[in-house]
Amino acid sequence: MTTNEKALLLHAEWNGKLETISKTSVKSREDLALAYTPGVAEPCKVIAENKEEAYRYTMKANTVAVVSDGSAVLGLGNIGALAAMPVMEGKAVLFKEFANVNAFPICLDTQDTEEIIKTVINIAPAFGGINLEDISAPRCFEIEARLNELLDIPVFHDDQHGTAIVVLAGIINGLKVTGKKIDSCKIVVNGAGSAGIAITKILLSYGFKDVIMCDRPGILSKDTPDLNWMQKEMMEVTNLKGQTGSLADAFVGADIFVGVSAPNIVTSEMVSTMNKDSIIFAMANPIPEIMPDIAKAAGAKVVGTGRSDFPNQVNNVIAFPGIFKGALEGRASQITEEMKLAAALAIAELIPEDKLSENYIIPEAFDSRVADAVSTAIKTHIK
Amino acid sequence: MTTNEKALLLHAEWNGKLETISKTSVKSREDLALAYTPGVAEPCKVIAENKEEAYRYTMKANTVAVVSDGSAVLGLGNIGALAAMPVMEGKAVLFKEFANVNAFPICLDTQDTEEIIKTVINIAPAFGGINLEDISAPRCFEIEARLNELLDIPVFHDDQHGTAIVVLAGIINGLKVTGKKIDSCKIVVNGAGSAGIAITKILLSYGFKDVIMCDRPGILSKDTPDLNWMQKEMMEVTNLKGQTGSLADAFVGADIFVGVSAPNIVTSEMVSTMNKDSIIFAMANPIPEIMPDIAKAAGAKVVGTGRSDFPNQVNNVIAFPGIFKGALEGRASQITEEMKLAAALAIAELIPEDKLSENYIIPEAFDSRVADAVSTAIKTHIK
Repeated sequence: MTTNEKALLLHAEWNGKLETISKTSVKSREDLALAYTPGVAEPCKVIAENKEEAYRYTMKANTVAVVSDGSAVLGLGNIGALAAMPVMEGKAVLFKEFANVNAFPICLDTQDTEEIIKTVINIAPAFGGINLEDISAPRCFEIEARLNELLDIPVFHDDQHGTAIVVLAGIINGLKVTGKKIDSCKIVVNGAGSAGIAITKILLSYGFKDVIMCDRPGILSKDTPDLNWMQKEMMEVTNLKGQTGSLADAFVGADIFVGVSAPNIVTSEMVSTMNKDSIIFAMANPIPEIMPDIAKAAGAKVVGTGRSDFPNQVNNVIAFPGIFKGALEGRASQITEEMKLAAALAIAELIPEDKLSENYIIPEAFDSRVADAVSTAIKTHIK
Repeated sequence: MTTNEKALLLHAEWNGKLETISKTSVKSREDLALAYTPGVAEPCKVIAENKEEAYRYTMKANTVAVVSDGSAVLGLGNIGALAAMPVMEGKAVLFKEFANVNAFPICLDTQDTEEIIKTVINIAPAFGGINLEDISAPRCFEIEARLNELLDIPVFHDDQHGTAIVVLAGIINGLKVTGKKIDSCKIVVNGAGSAGIAITKILLSYGFKDVIMCDRPGILSKDTPDLNWMQKEMMEVTNLKGQTGSLADAFVGADIFVGVSAPNIVTSEMVSTMNKDSIIFAMANPIPEIMPDIAKAAGAKVVGTGRSDFPNQVNNVIAFPGIFKGALEGRASQITEEMKLAAALAIAELIPEDKLSENYIIPEAFDSRVADAVSTAIKTHIK
């Protein structure tokens, strides 16, 4: 049986991967009087006096909403809210399994930006954080920014920042392995959607200067037609020399390639035009932009993918559970750029110099140190 | 320590009464590939093809939203969504403990009818049913009716129908104990809010003809000023003789009194003007409209309250867990009037004739037969 066949069978058996349970049993009138009426009125009154107390008396303290409109689910595209449920339940499961954070799927039967924002604001009281998931670009940028402005709890679009944080962690260690320096690196990011833009942003925040974004038309510049508003914004801070041309043109003289795009679109010829000891993250799933062995044969020193069957897997589960754990424990009102950088550094530092190698620049998803390391990094940067 | 003090301490200790847990552990790459990517794409694709499959592959099959805007919480009034959280978490706990149904608090940061409706529709995909809770009248009537019209999952306002079903169950058995007949009973319902109106409606559905509603101005009739739209509607089917006067006037010659109003507003004089062997449900909480001993001394034969320390407790937990369990298992798209009547009958019939007495007309909240009996009754009436 294939993994996919087994997954379908198991999903039917589970009939929902997530469940809600009570922390206290209700087996007697006294239990009922304490967990429900009349006793429950007491914490209600305390919270009505002081909203902060909700973090003491309710699950808000440790609960995240996994919010999606089903518009950009995995590689499946716009399959809608209901069909997105297995993914959002799965995400909620990972929150609990990796960081002991409660999470619940909020699958939205609307893809209208304003309605999504309004709905999330309306349901926010029960939650200590909002994890946005699989919402298509460029709407995801506005939704995240507006929600962060309007809510006093952290809002984090994992497809953007989870991926970006893990990629940056990998690149930080990739630099150590290759001896490359931030100042002199030329980076090509292919795929100008939510992940590609977030990766580019965090690379710039970290200090890289020379980043070129590409997408279907090739190299993106100020002159590229039909850019969305966010892509236009990115043209103010990337490709500062105004290079034009194809993806292959972008590769020439590059040190790092990051692909969040499509299978097999990078050739060994392209890789061979990069600078020596190049670093490649080919994260198209399940088939990468270029297979690791081909990339290495063409001169790449470090290769990461999105797959668990190759070294250096970029897996968001390394980042998001610890990020929310830290944000909730530290009562962060936002996940700031500083926190994201700190999380990436904390992930990178989990691999000591003497263990670091081209095949081990990112910790394993099941490395039990990860969630706490990330959480601590986040908490250190809460003001 | 009082119950209230203990409840507050326990709520701090619990730090949330509800948690989400995974039904499957994720400890290896293989687990991850089955519960999350890439395997999770399979059930997504199946649901995208056929929405019905969500009931096979996701938690929707057995999950209820406990929705409140915090506008009419317990006896506390309009304390808002955040302060309502302990109650909604408690309700979710009861769903799981009494009927093994998953439930999650959706506390709404809006009290606008249209926004509430829109928000609930937007988040509906994850849920198999919507339990409305502690929403003030008359908005609750419109919200419930509109949602039932717009959604294909059952929507049930428990403050209305949960209470009404249990009261009707008690009255059905009260008739047996007192020998009173449906056709000749005069009933007074005091309190024309959500519970009072729902009780009146179910009593009429069951076949009672002569029901009078009272509220602060006394007996309500078509001529009473300032009735809301729902109260006006009720005047078409109650008080058909157009009686006017005070609550005391209403009592004269009545057989059954149902109070969902205020403490100590019924006097022994009022009760003494009722017909012989009267039935009284005095459900103001925690202090009833009249204490059971006083009511009995004044001539009442059967007295029920909302309290667990007196016989015949009207407790919604007798109804709502089984109602949703049945509706979910039977995939009902609505909770119909027929189902509500069937639930009341099923509850009443749990007490065999030889055990029935004036002090035992309603099963105990912890009677383990209740949820299944109610659930079966509901399922029997799904078309």
